[in-house]
Amino acid sequence: MAAFPIFASRRIRKTPYSARVEASGLSAYTTYNHMLLPAAFTSLAEDCAHLKQHVQIWDVAAERQVEIKGKDAHKLACLMSARDLSKAVPGRGYYAPLCDAKGGMINDPIALCLAPDHFWFSIADSDVELWALGLATALDLDVQICEPDVSPLAIQGPKAEDLMAKVFGEEVRDIRMFRFQTFEFQGTPMIIQRSGWSKQGGFEIYLPRFDLGLALWDRIWEEGNTPEFQIRAGGPNLIERIEGGLLSYGNDMNRSNTPLECRLDRFLALDVEGSAFMGKDALLRQRDEGLKQALVGVRIAGDPIAPLAFPFATKLNERSAGIVTSAVHSHDMGSNIGFAMLAIEACEPGTTISVETPAGWRQAEVCELPFPKA
Amino acid sequence: MAAFPIFASRRIRKTPYSARVEASGLSAYTTYNHMLLPAAFTSLAEDCAHLKQHVQIWDVAAERQVEIKGKDAHKLACLMSARDLSKAVPGRGYYAPLCDAKGGMINDPIALCLAPDHFWFSIADSDVELWALGLATALDLDVQICEPDVSPLAIQGPKAEDLMAKVFGEEVRDIRMFRFQTFEFQGTPMIIQRSGWSKQGGFEIYLPRFDLGLALWDRIWEEGNTPEFQIRAGGPNLIERIEGGLLSYGNDMNRSNTPLECRLDRFLALDVEGSAFMGKDALLRQRDEGLKQALVGVRIAGDPIAPLAFPFATKLNERSAGIVTSAVHSHDMGSNIGFAMLAIEACEPGTTISVETPAGWRQAEVCELPFPKA
Repeated sequence: MAAFPIFASRRIRKTPYSARVEASGLSAYTTYNHMLLPAAFTSLAEDCAHLKQHVQIWDVAAERQVEIKGKDAHKLACLMSARDLSKAVPGRGYYAPLCDAKGGMINDPIALCLAPDHFWFSIADSDVELWALGLATALDLDVQICEPDVSPLAIQGPKAEDLMAKVFGEEVRDIRMFRFQTFEFQGTPMIIQRSGWSKQGGFEIYLPRFDLGLALWDRIWEEGNTPEFQIRAGGPNLIERIEGGLLSYGNDMNRSNTPLECRLDRFLALDVEGSAFMGKDALLRQRDEGLKQALVGVRIAGDPIAPLAFPFATKLNERSAGIVTSAVHSHDMGSNIGFAMLAIEACEPGTTISVETPAGWRQAEVCELPFPKA
Repeated sequence: MAAFPIFASRRIRKTPYSARVEASGLSAYTTYNHMLLPAAFTSLAEDCAHLKQHVQIWDVAAERQVEIKGKDAHKLACLMSARDLSKAVPGRGYYAPLCDAKGGMINDPIALCLAPDHFWFSIADSDVELWALGLATALDLDVQICEPDVSPLAIQGPKAEDLMAKVFGEEVRDIRMFRFQTFEFQGTPMIIQRSGWSKQGGFEIYLPRFDLGLALWDRIWEEGNTPEFQIRAGGPNLIERIEGGLLSYGNDMNRSNTPLECRLDRFLALDVEGSAFMGKDALLRQRDEGLKQALVGVRIAGDPIAPLAFPFATKLNERSAGIVTSAVHSHDMGSNIGFAMLAIEACEPGTTISVETPAGWRQAEVCELPFPKA
């Protein structure tokens, strides 16, 4: 399949880091929240292997922040988040599925509590700001909602902590998972959270000034460009994220899916007394009635498949059984692996289904998520 | 500048026509409403020259529809639209700026009235569905909101009417501007409107079945692939749209701009008795107080500029005067032309400003929109 270039415009914005990304071996972009997001450098497989061994610097500025601030900010955050934020603590991030009134997923941000009346939803690819604004306007809430000048830069991989300690000081080692603290760079305070869209460990730096982007990148690159660290530019990696069971909003689920179908039960405030978030009634009803479809892992037989042309159709006993939403060949697992949203009768681990890949119909085995470590 | 390829995924969807587009000389994509949108074929200049002389078939499926249907559909449409829809008539489309409560533009769709209780907002690039859903949910309106399986295909250019008449019959000639009627293709009714994102005339076919996309494309291509029509694949063309004064949401304006600043006064229901649309109070206040910035045309001196790296900074008397939002070299106008959102003191036609283009600072002259015909 031929690939076609994309041009930046004011509508599809560059990031503070684009100049460095494009000079660091970028081979493909995607777009995300009206911004460019690096998708591949050397190759998905080589990018993945390097990420698991060394450290990478990721331009994830496209993870935009929806800022909710003011007297009713906590109220709105709690209304929007299917995860309990009633006791949200400043300095913590919360993976928070957002639902519409029917329980359909609108996004799945990390909600950062900056202060009791100040939240950032660090969003996946949909205009959460318009959803928040619609609710706040119609409910006449006392909140300010905006997209601030904040552009995350992720440092990911097993050597991320050592590298970050060199740049920001030993204190970064004390940050626990989904906790954040404020550090200074060139006199500008910026939030650093232990988080990121890989399972290899690392941090996200919430750069609050576009004009400091290249200086921040260069400072980290300078420290990481050694035989010890072997830093490279990278980005969320399709292979690594599927191996690690990380779902991608818009790919693996969208508004036609609930968080229960996505097996995100443990993040939901369904049993929290007094919770009244958007979609709660619908989700309680669905839990009560049972799921009709659910997200599972699949191992697809045969040669490596091209990670293109999703979703793939599936069949169980010659009848349509749902779709494979993302899939890729994993060298470390020695197999094609993927996510699928399947009819509940196909979800039992061990079930054999047929999958229509770009290379034709293949057999696949349903399995639990996350995939067991290779 | 190097260009980097973009890959389709479930999150950045292909359209019903993508296979034909990619086989018809596509050279660059952009993304729009989470979908692929063709941006260039042979070159912007050659695409433009052909469009003005012959007929083109455009994959504009990325102009998604936000469907609003039900008892309160008209109420919600009127609340959302800064244009008066109180007397909207089935069979008509209305260019309708949508504003937030502060008058900031959220989108600028064509609102198609299908029935008194049934509207499609044929949107530019932002998730209007989430805005509509937020309002409707919080106001407890009796409406169904969805993105239907509707993928517009545009036929544009001076020979568009003759070609459409060959495919759909002579009746298409009777459709007036921004009027639509239902025609059949292979037994499936589909809406055809005289509209489209060029000033060369033409139609948009609202294909309501993804699986009929290639058949529809092929039928039109077959009829148009003659010495008479010389059909080519195309898409909204940067040169032609700037020459014609067509604004692009996200490029030329966004939520930091009001429709008054964009000189869209004639579309606003500010003086319609009983109108109560979102942002009305803010717009009345702004009209009363006077604009601080406004959209104008600019002619940028010197050699042809590359249409990249927007926005361009501007200066008037050594002080920042706003931005050039889109610009391109127009062969037919013999000049670089563009749109700029400038401080009001720079908006007088004939004012000379400085503009920072990718080729350095250039002089530019402010002029009225639309540009006079070459």
